[in-house]
Amino acid sequence: MIIIMKPTASEADLTRVIERVRMHGLDVHLSRGEERTIVGVLGNVQGLDRNAFEVMPGVESTVRITQPFKVASREFHQTDTIIDVRGVKIGGERLVVIAGPCSVESREQILETARAVKEAGAHILRGGAYKPRTSPYSFQGLGEEGLKLLAEARELTGLPIITEVMSPDEVPLVCEYADILQIGARNMQNYRLLQAVGKTQTPVLLKRGLSSTIQELLMSAEYILSNGNYDVMLCERGIRTFERYTRNTLDINAIPVLKQISHLPVIADPSHGTGKWRLVAPVARACIAAGADGLMVEVHPNPDLAWSDGAQSLRPDRFTRLMAELKPLAAVVGRAL
Amino acid sequence: MIIIMKPTASEADLTRVIERVRMHGLDVHLSRGEERTIVGVLGNVQGLDRNAFEVMPGVESTVRITQPFKVASREFHQTDTIIDVRGVKIGGERLVVIAGPCSVESREQILETARAVKEAGAHILRGGAYKPRTSPYSFQGLGEEGLKLLAEARELTGLPIITEVMSPDEVPLVCEYADILQIGARNMQNYRLLQAVGKTQTPVLLKRGLSSTIQELLMSAEYILSNGNYDVMLCERGIRTFERYTRNTLDINAIPVLKQISHLPVIADPSHGTGKWRLVAPVARACIAAGADGLMVEVHPNPDLAWSDGAQSLRPDRFTRLMAELKPLAAVVGRAL
Amino acid sequence: MIIIMKPTASEADLTRVIERVRMHGLDVHLSRGEERTIVGVLGNVQGLDRNAFEVMPGVESTVRITQPFKVASREFHQTDTIIDVRGVKIGGERLVVIAGPCSVESREQILETARAVKEAGAHILRGGAYKPRTSPYSFQGLGEEGLKLLAEARELTGLPIITEVMSPDEVPLVCEYADILQIGARNMQNYRLLQAVGKTQTPVLLKRGLSSTIQELLMSAEYILSNGNYDVMLCERGIRTFERYTRNTLDINAIPVLKQISHLPVIADPSHGTGKWRLVAPVARACIAAGADGLMVEVHPNPDLAWSDGAQSLRPDRFTRLMAELKPLAAVVGRAL
Amino acid sequence: MIIIMKPTASEADLTRVIERVRMHGLDVHLSRGEERTIVGVLGNVQGLDRNAFEVMPGVESTVRITQPFKVASREFHQTDTIIDVRGVKIGGERLVVIAGPCSVESREQILETARAVKEAGAHILRGGAYKPRTSPYSFQGLGEEGLKLLAEARELTGLPIITEVMSPDEVPLVCEYADILQIGARNMQNYRLLQAVGKTQTPVLLKRGLSSTIQELLMSAEYILSNGNYDVMLCERGIRTFERYTRNTLDINAIPVLKQISHLPVIADPSHGTGKWRLVAPVARACIAAGADGLMVEVHPNPDLAWSDGAQSLRPDRFTRLMAELKPLAAVVGRAL
Repeated sequence: MIIIMKPTASEADLTRVIERVRMHGLDVHLSRGEERTIVGVLGNVQGLDRNAFEVMPGVESTVRITQPFKVASREFHQTDTIIDVRGVKIGGERLVVIAGPCSVESREQILETARAVKEAGAHILRGGAYKPRTSPYSFQGLGEEGLKLLAEARELTGLPIITEVMSPDEVPLVCEYADILQIGARNMQNYRLLQAVGKTQTPVLLKRGLSSTIQELLMSAEYILSNGNYDVMLCERGIRTFERYTRNTLDINAIPVLKQISHLPVIADPSHGTGKWRLVAPVARACIAAGADGLMVEVHPNPDLAWSDGAQSLRPDRFTRLMAELKPLAAVVGRAL
Repeated sequence: MIIIMKPTASEADLTRVIERVRMHGLDVHLSRGEERTIVGVLGNVQGLDRNAFEVMPGVESTVRITQPFKVASREFHQTDTIIDVRGVKIGGERLVVIAGPCSVESREQILETARAVKEAGAHILRGGAYKPRTSPYSFQGLGEEGLKLLAEARELTGLPIITEVMSPDEVPLVCEYADILQIGARNMQNYRLLQAVGKTQTPVLLKRGLSSTIQELLMSAEYILSNGNYDVMLCERGIRTFERYTRNTLDINAIPVLKQISHLPVIADPSHGTGKWRLVAPVARACIAAGADGLMVEVHPNPDLAWSDGAQSLRPDRFTRLMAELKPLAAVVGRAL
Repeated sequence: MIIIMKPTASEADLTRVIERVRMHGLDVHLSRGEERTIVGVLGNVQGLDRNAFEVMPGVESTVRITQPFKVASREFHQTDTIIDVRGVKIGGERLVVIAGPCSVESREQILETARAVKEAGAHILRGGAYKPRTSPYSFQGLGEEGLKLLAEARELTGLPIITEVMSPDEVPLVCEYADILQIGARNMQNYRLLQAVGKTQTPVLLKRGLSSTIQELLMSAEYILSNGNYDVMLCERGIRTFERYTRNTLDINAIPVLKQISHLPVIADPSHGTGKWRLVAPVARACIAAGADGLMVEVHPNPDLAWSDGAQSLRPDRFTRLMAELKPLAAVVGRAL
Repeated sequence: MIIIMKPTASEADLTRVIERVRMHGLDVHLSRGEERTIVGVLGNVQGLDRNAFEVMPGVESTVRITQPFKVASREFHQTDTIIDVRGVKIGGERLVVIAGPCSVESREQILETARAVKEAGAHILRGGAYKPRTSPYSFQGLGEEGLKLLAEARELTGLPIITEVMSPDEVPLVCEYADILQIGARNMQNYRLLQAVGKTQTPVLLKRGLSSTIQELLMSAEYILSNGNYDVMLCERGIRTFERYTRNTLDINAIPVLKQISHLPVIADPSHGTGKWRLVAPVARACIAAGADGLMVEVHPNPDLAWSDGAQSLRPDRFTRLMAELKPLAAVVGRAL
């Protein structure tokens, strides 16, 4: 349930409403708009009497939220959430392109890629320092050394950086470097990790799990939101199906669904979504046409030598061409790039 | 294997090549281009000595086809296949939009819809007369009466018509009326039906089965092609996954994959692919951006009263708006509408 | 809805009930038991007034059937259906084992296999004469020649035979030879074929489609039952999932589910369900322990040379060992073999 | 690669072999048998010269391990691993039954259930103190209070206890109480957690992820094993498919596959695998018939009032009946209960 306060409501009105909610053992989430404040009631509201709130001074109306996710739902927050990352706005009119290698491999590799994607028009640099790998014997990332190299690339290019965090106890360290924390698909339901990033103020990109429903993705976002971090963006990166020609099946339907039932920005990852670089450009275009707020694209100076995900990484020249293709497409769907 | 003849090859050269193929118990498929003829060798070519053919008079070279589908592969036929249906070209530069109701329900319903979609710019009229329904107790279609109403709608609007055929013995009757035969998803591996439509000269739209891989779709197309009907278009209409917010999961990846490995036109069906009319427009845009040659969209004058698939049908005014949105998008991806 | 007549009801009472049902445009299915007759009402019963029937002379009570499948549901027919095939009872206390090669390849092959499986204790011989194959270039079965060889094997061993039918127009011919008609997984929703076999009096084994739900399987059974053929057995043969170590994923849950919500016999196919002969025996045991009424097992005298499905076929000696293992297991779950 | 030492090899021979392995930057895992010692080489052995090892004193032979999982593979360790948990042997001839409620809810609930399952013959008590829940607003478990209650139940009944751990930093606390650490399906690829439990000496039960392949399950086991904890048991608990009649689809095939390619004990969970208590008994029987080393079954004194998973929990009397059914079944498949 949300409680919409009148524009004329006083702080004392608001306090009384909050206290009444808490009397029922429930918690609140406040959205203070320019005109009015909205009180989100968190927890099980089944026993709550809406009328009792509607007659309180300063209350305009109440709205029941029918979805199991609350703060993440569009009923709760009707306008699009826009997340500001060092001046880059995610979720607004301008599309955002995140690009870079799967893993940070070396100083040369990450700086060269950062320069290339910056030049091609990317807005944010990606790169993995802690890599969740299926095999314990595979390259597991450079760790803090990788974070430092990302920070150097940011200094060089001005691009904010996004990198993955895998464990609650690594959150403080990664927060020191990252502008956006990435939660990988395998950790989408690692609730302790979601709670940990929910307690930071660093924006989070939450990837959909391989076999997670759209609703489960939003429930996981709710774990972050309900811990107080409202800067969450959702990432469709392909689901696991019977089809094996492609690495995953990018669920294009999920993009408009998420935009309709949630206010959070939606980023699409055509690299993981397809697993083949030849498919990245057409699927990237499709994601933008479907309403995505941005893309996450793997770019590597030499995909054949990449330590991970080479088959799905674009060479810088192909990424540049993709960016050029996206510009007029963005305009057609009412966005800018 | 395909055998590429020299531009200067004589008919006698060609005949000798064909005879040599047949000596091995194999069959041929001829593509006579303006400059040269290409001989497709059908069947198991493992024992065949390519050198023996390459030294024959009139032969320029041979190419091994690595895919299990042969006539359907782009290796076999490198340029896009364009199918002409009463003057409407499918697979060429212009996008093709097929629209109409799920089922033909009445004279008024089909004529009204035909007029509306024609006015909005659709090129082909769809409508089911024989309906495969999960329950034997559901409406099974008007049968031949439905075909006659479709023909009347064609006369009225000039739109070619597409309708489903469910059984080999219904093929002759449906061919009397239909400009395009539709094979539904449930019948994608009904091989007797594929063989039967393969023996006609009526173009076929082959829908991907709910749990069929891209390769299996092309193998089913091969059943039609290898029976002599080369006018086959493929239809991505969503696959069955664990996600239930949408009726199916439209596999956007399949569109560029099919365009890359096959020369056949690819039509996308965002109505079945999503199951919800609110998702049809964004997903339709995505399909065009991904490279589809056309769309198949369910339109009903009164979706709430539709006898089948009402939830995913567009009202005519919404379909008109979609057509307007698609025009500039088509231009951006190098197509016309 | 079903209408349960009193033991004392007269034929005239029954006739009046049937007439009243038909007045509503609905049809009936009669089950005449030793004590009482049950009238199944087919079609959409939403508008029907149950009270109006309950007060009619001879009527004891009415029961609403909540499942979308009617004749197939256990509500409709509470005791297990037992199908008699040349004296072999399917669905009763004794388990039934169907065994034989995937395809009939030659006279020697089928006769040798028939003798071997008979000796090992199998009750019914399987063998494909018409083979649905993914590729049009693969072996498609021996056709009528295969049917004749199966009939010869039956004569030799006394084993009833089951073989697949792929098309409505092949039904009469296959019925001349087969004791059980098999509908393959790819044709589970080939409704014209279901209707055609529903009009025969030959028992039918209906295989679950690769991506068909349990409910869809029962709806397809309903197509056969509602056409008047009540001798339908269901076959769980594995569904398509993301797992690729095995060819399919045998859905063991489906066995007790089907036994609980339907009265039809359930046969399990561990050969297709696993795709690997090393897994056939343990999974066959599991199916019996879960309550299957029988098994369908591929046996080939020389699996390495089989024209199809060699990897999942048992050698006769391994099949003999499996039969020996199943005997004490059957006893433990209250069955005989 | 594994290096098999001669029975006559000295400690000095062994030390030289180990040193040579380490010279290549690789690590070893020693299995000291009664007759001989086997040296498992961990890491990328591609560049390793097997001959160079085979000529060393004390070396009998070397074997290449073809699977991507090494320590988990049956090639690496040919006899079944047997894990001893307070005297209960898991993986040996006797089947092991783990039973108890989904969540520890109260002192009365857990003690009553513990007594009931003990009396029915269960060997280990399960109960969740830390619960991974889809919604942040659902009951999250009693935490350490729950662990204490489990310990009290152990004291009362003598049953060892298994409980879930969700985060690396909770591992030390949970280890103080638990005899077996459970890794839940959602955390199967939470690699930091796998590494953390790999560094303990507490046995681990690793549940298969909802959409994880059999190979991925073994790769996750490898994370634990390669960190030095060899007491890992695998748990098949159902995968996510399109079927929705059941909560999950228990992959019965996975049981014999795991037994064939790995030496680790395999436990099956028919409660989560089906989601419906009416299906638990038949599916439990199937799992034993397929070769599982044990079962994990949810039992609750009053399923209708359970705080989680009530629909799939057995009442104590039904659990008692299941245990009685399993005894003769175990004997038939060569096991004891």
